[in-house]
Order: sequence, then C-alpha cells, then structure tokens
Amino acid sequence: MSVDISAIETVNQAFYTAIEDADLDRMTEIWAEDSGDDLVSCVHPGWSLLAGRAEVLRSWALIMANTTYIQFVLTDVNTNVLGDVAVLTCVENILTAGDEGDSSFAAGKVVASNVYIKTAQGWRLWMHHGSPVLQSDDEEEEGDLER
Amino acid sequence: MSVDISAIETVNQAFYTAIEDADLDRMTEIWAEDSGDDLVSCVHPGWSLLAGRAEVLRSWALIMANTTYIQFVLTDVNTNVLGDVAVLTCVENILTAGDEGDSSFAAGKVVASNVYIKTAQGWRLWMHHGSPVLQSDDEEEEGDLER
Repeated sequence: MSVDISAIETVNQAFYTAIEDADLDRMTEIWAEDSGDDLVSCVHPGWSLLAGRAEVLRSWALIMANTTYIQFVLTDVNTNVLGDVAVLTCVENILTAGDEGDSSFAAGKVVASNVYIKTAQGWRLWMHHGSPVLQSDDEEEEGDLER
Repeated sequence: MSVDISAIETVNQAFYTAIEDADLDRMTEIWAEDSGDDLVSCVHPGWSLLAGRAEVLRSWALIMANTTYIQFVLTDVNTNVLGDVAVLTCVENILTAGDEGDSSFAAGKVVASNVYIKTAQGWRLWMHHGSPVLQSDDEEEEGDLER
C-alpha cells in the first residue's frame, strides 16, 4: 500500500471514529477548507446536499447531539488516488442504539463515497456522500448485478 | 465560467441525455477507462456500489432496457475543479413513465455527486453516486438544516 493510500485510509478511519466519539473538534480538523466559491459538500443518507464548511459541520453537530450510540464497521474500502485528489469508497455497516438501551439497537448499511484532497496539512475531506442501501443482496442477485 | 467547467458541464449534460435516449454507445464514451486496480464506480439510488467499467456499463444497459421513459431536469449544478479532477454535484429532478402511458408517470428527486477526470480524450466520468432524497424540504426546515 502506498504512503498516500495509507495516509488517506487513516484519515478516513479517523472520520468515522470522530462520529462514534461525537468529537466535533476532530471532525472540524478532518474537513478541508472551502476555497472561494468551491465549497466542501456532504450528503447524509436520504438527505439533500449540504454545501460549505459551516453548514456541513453544523449538520454533524446536530447528528452527534442526537445520537446516543453509533458504531461503524467499514468493509470494501477502496481508494483511488488521482493526483492530489483521492476517491475512497466503502460500505458503512452501522449499529445504532437509542435511549432505551439494548432493546433499541438497529443495524443498517450505507454505501459511501468520500473525496479527499491533499493539502499542506495532509489529506482532508472534500466531499462525503452516503446513501442507504435499500436493495437487498438477494434482489441484486436476482437481477444478476452483484459482483 | 472557465473553459474546463463549461466542458465538464457539457459532458455531464451528455451523461443524462444518454440515459434519456437509452444511448449505451454514448454512455460508453462518457465513462473513463479503468486504470489497473483503479476502477470507475457507480452507485444507483438505493443500490450497492458497482465497480469497474464492465459492471457499471452492464448496469446501465439493464436500466436502459427496463426504462420506458425517463426525463431529467438538473438543478443546483455545482462544479469544483481540483487539478485534473472535478467534483460536480447536482439535483436530478426525474420524471418517469411505465408501459401504461400517462397514468403511470412518477416524479422523484435524487442528489448526485459526479467525479470527472481530465484525459487525453477530454473530461470523462470516474464516479457517479446518486442517492434518493427521502427527507422532505419541510422536514429539513423543521430541523433548520436547509440553506
């Protein structure tokens, strides 16, 4: 694994750990700066697009404030480096719990595309797009679309 | 608008026109080539990730074969050029119809992130990630997350 890919995947893991730990300071460090009219962007599963650091970080603050427990197990992590830009795709296998304790655990699956850019401070998140996987593997196999 | 942004948005429009016209040849031209272990990727709304030209183009062939009528009106098109990579986000306002004629029209809203790379042949699509917008604008306004 190249130095870049290792560094990108380390930041990517830190991104998910920041959500698990509700660590908004760490999340703030991980996102790139807006650059003039070029704004970072974020799509949470099922949401519209959010653009710009202020709006994106506000959404994470709200999510963290409203999440009792969340755990991510990442699978199918794949990183393509294209110059100073990297496209990382992964599957987020998510376990969440509400306020009611063990009885309220729920599991979900999200596919994510995360775009990172190389900056003087290292690789930073430029775009996060997470979307719910609504089609079951069985359905995909029926359609013969699964690898 | 810079020459690059204009060229990228022209290819992006051609991508959606190819879907509307069920033009698989044009779609084949628009997607970049895989590069060794680096594979193009595509997430259709609600689907798992597809990786590699063969798998991605096969999915488009299936979608085209199973779509009677589809029309895209793109809004909120925003393009960020980062070296030889561009991240274009847009909202796909989709109108579809089934085999039953006018009575089967349906409308939907998808948020898309499209990553293009600059090649010797021009800008080509490296990643398409479309996800259903499940949250209504009203709900977002209640959460005070809408711009």
